[in-house]
Amino acid sequence: MNKERVNRVLDEMSRLGVEQMVITDPYSIYYMAGHLELPWERFWALYLRADGKHKLYSNRLFSLDEVEDVEIVWYSDTEDGSEMLAQEVMHDKVLGIDKGMQAKFLLRLMELHAAADYKNASVCVDDVRASKDEEEKALMREASRVNDVSMEELKTRIKPGMTELELAGQLEAIYKSHGAQGHSFEPLVGFGENAARGHHGSGDTVLKDGDCILIDVGCKKDHYCADMTRTFFFGEVSEAHRKVYETVLRAQLAAEAVIKPGIPLCDIDRAARSVIEEAGYGPYFTHRLGHFIGSEVHEAGDVSAANQRTAKPGMIFSIEPGIYLPDDVGVRIEDLVLVTEDGVEILNHYTKELQVIEKQES
Amino acid sequence: MNKERVNRVLDEMSRLGVEQMVITDPYSIYYMAGHLELPWERFWALYLRADGKHKLYSNRLFSLDEVEDVEIVWYSDTEDGSEMLAQEVMHDKVLGIDKGMQAKFLLRLMELHAAADYKNASVCVDDVRASKDEEEKALMREASRVNDVSMEELKTRIKPGMTELELAGQLEAIYKSHGAQGHSFEPLVGFGENAARGHHGSGDTVLKDGDCILIDVGCKKDHYCADMTRTFFFGEVSEAHRKVYETVLRAQLAAEAVIKPGIPLCDIDRAARSVIEEAGYGPYFTHRLGHFIGSEVHEAGDVSAANQRTAKPGMIFSIEPGIYLPDDVGVRIEDLVLVTEDGVEILNHYTKELQVIEKQES
Repeated sequence: MNKERVNRVLDEMSRLGVEQMVITDPYSIYYMAGHLELPWERFWALYLRADGKHKLYSNRLFSLDEVEDVEIVWYSDTEDGSEMLAQEVMHDKVLGIDKGMQAKFLLRLMELHAAADYKNASVCVDDVRASKDEEEKALMREASRVNDVSMEELKTRIKPGMTELELAGQLEAIYKSHGAQGHSFEPLVGFGENAARGHHGSGDTVLKDGDCILIDVGCKKDHYCADMTRTFFFGEVSEAHRKVYETVLRAQLAAEAVIKPGIPLCDIDRAARSVIEEAGYGPYFTHRLGHFIGSEVHEAGDVSAANQRTAKPGMIFSIEPGIYLPDDVGVRIEDLVLVTEDGVEILNHYTKELQVIEKQES
Repeated sequence: MNKERVNRVLDEMSRLGVEQMVITDPYSIYYMAGHLELPWERFWALYLRADGKHKLYSNRLFSLDEVEDVEIVWYSDTEDGSEMLAQEVMHDKVLGIDKGMQAKFLLRLMELHAAADYKNASVCVDDVRASKDEEEKALMREASRVNDVSMEELKTRIKPGMTELELAGQLEAIYKSHGAQGHSFEPLVGFGENAARGHHGSGDTVLKDGDCILIDVGCKKDHYCADMTRTFFFGEVSEAHRKVYETVLRAQLAAEAVIKPGIPLCDIDRAARSVIEEAGYGPYFTHRLGHFIGSEVHEAGDVSAANQRTAKPGMIFSIEPGIYLPDDVGVRIEDLVLVTEDGVEILNHYTKELQVIEKQES
């Protein structure tokens, strides 16, 4: 296992007073044990103990080799992996639980009286993962570099008469041509009023004059994720839409400008939100400012009014304000940012200036 | 909501003695409420009650409209949706829990003493979903039809010198050209000895003479999933490999032949496994025979030695025996099958005869 990462997690467990913990998030296990397994409904769990007697529970089907510093406990499809864990757990102590553990496994541990009590101790691994180490920073920079060049290339594919899905469908090949393995999430392309709809997926809507083109996309490269949004306009942009765009851009830059270690994450959200509220669009910025990201596209923690925790060096999150005017237009601008020792490094370098795509004939 | 489906679930709850239940599986919610939302880390839950006072907990970001026969309880990113549910739960009664509920929500409900006790009651909805209704059968037939024609088309793209990823990468466009929305899971293409490795993902291995070509793929169409495996050979097939293939095929056909209502699922597994064991390959068939499938590619329930439940009309699952000889060859043949009133309907019609792909120049 990666000793430095495991030790950081054990330190957090000690701080929380938890001597044993079960981790089921495949990406958290990958983070420590170096093997990515997506187990679906099967049991795949790393049991960490303060005394170093760690165990990794693995179905015989998983393509796992030996992992240093951890004993692998194999089970087959006809055995109950969580029962095997229950036997190992120190029954008179609290067991820390991963936030995403499936209820069927947790309820089974409870039924077997595995531990004295159960506590959501996910923060012990989530906080460690939130602050990226040097190896991870390099991977995150590279994923965002590929996302930058791919956004430019995708922009050149925008043609009159095409649908959202047709545009979105071209991105995977672009990513792969730049060495990424694929998407980090289903690419979201929204034309015109579709861009104003929250969580709208790409569809069969055809691009028309004056439409905004909202593109929220990310690649995955070497197990790390990019995520960036740009909003273009097609053919022309109305004054009203230009004002929306400029407001979002000012909000986005205002947020990035205040980032440094020690600032509460809610204050970063506030910096962007204030710009939008002062311009009169407050009710149309309907979501939090950002989310953490790394080997998963959404990791624990967000940049929102509700999060008073402070920024720390190594944290990487998105800064993505938006204004969504129903039945009219949606604009969002998103970068990934890395908190440095004394400020911030913006991982995306693709221009945020308003771009109006010319109508060439296809 | 779909009254018939909800009523079937309420009947199962009544049978299990559970008066209230919280369902968090997005596909189970889609099954009843008709809205598919993938909530990531956010709370998205359908609270079902025997007295009909159902509630649906939704983040304001979700693109949900009204749903008949259920009250929607909205919360924002700065509110605690699970706390809102805890207030609603009948505190003196058991609360049924969905098997996949994230531990952070379950532990929060427990912390708030929401219910008298918590019980994995997933079977109430899983069993209902396992037996498809007419609308679902039609959707499953159509998804498998597209998978059949796409397999044939993909076969024609096999060329000397190509890699697994290059072949796999062509499938999405084929699916879309036939009206599917995309993959139901990451397509798995394994050449030669890679096909013998469990859970091996498609990679950069180049196709060579005499290789087996294992293709395990599925499309998703109108929210329902296909899943089929065929194994071809390239250029030539050795006698040893032909024997492996014919054994797998006999096992696959033997299993399909015994399917009818009332047969224990473990007996179907046994029918295939016996053929493989008698041919001397027993240790090399390393997984269960099949899994249930529908709007999710893996649904609750499997066809394995451990499952003594019986087949019922409307059930759809995979029949996918395989033989994997390490560092040599892997063969798997998989169909989806539907249990009918008096037997079985095979949903895949693509040939299972051994096919050797000719080496044309590319």
